[in-house]
Amino acid sequence: MKEFKVKIEVKLKPVVLDPQGKTVLQALNNLGYAEVGDARIGKLIELTVSDGSAENVRERVNEMCMKLLSNPVIENFDINIEEQNA
Amino acid sequence: MKEFKVKIEVKLKPVVLDPQGKTVLQALNNLGYAEVGDARIGKLIELTVSDGSAENVRERVNEMCMKLLSNPVIENFDINIEEQNA
Repeated sequence: MKEFKVKIEVKLKPVVLDPQGKTVLQALNNLGYAEVGDARIGKLIELTVSDGSAENVRERVNEMCMKLLSNPVIENFDINIEEQNA
Repeated sequence: MKEFKVKIEVKLKPVVLDPQGKTVLQALNNLGYAEVGDARIGKLIELTVSDGSAENVRERVNEMCMKLLSNPVIENFDINIEEQNA
């Protein structure tokens, strides 16, 4: 059994409006950061997973994302898997 | 003036309790994903920035993180800057 660090980036699909991002953008512009033209906010999920192989981990984490961690109707996700050295 | 894609990962410091992560962990375990041992939730912020150089961008974005985008008392942040091809 190996241990893996899994990093999942959950982002709204580009066509979906992001009111939280718009608010952050406005706040940054108001603070004087006029160089910022767009802001979008997503989620970062970090899991520690014990499993036999990275392929297994990817398959299972993909399932977790579809079922629980993201809303596939409006969000995309990226999965990054790193094996931990014991 | 160049355009940069900036990706900021905001994570709770390791010593700070993460109740949202604990809830996600419990939900995953309840769904049958017993291989997941830990879960932590952070924020992912993506900015589009127009500026002269990547060094400038890093300095300004670092400031934005300290002032608005993160809570430096309980959170760490990582900044990743990529120049966009026109």
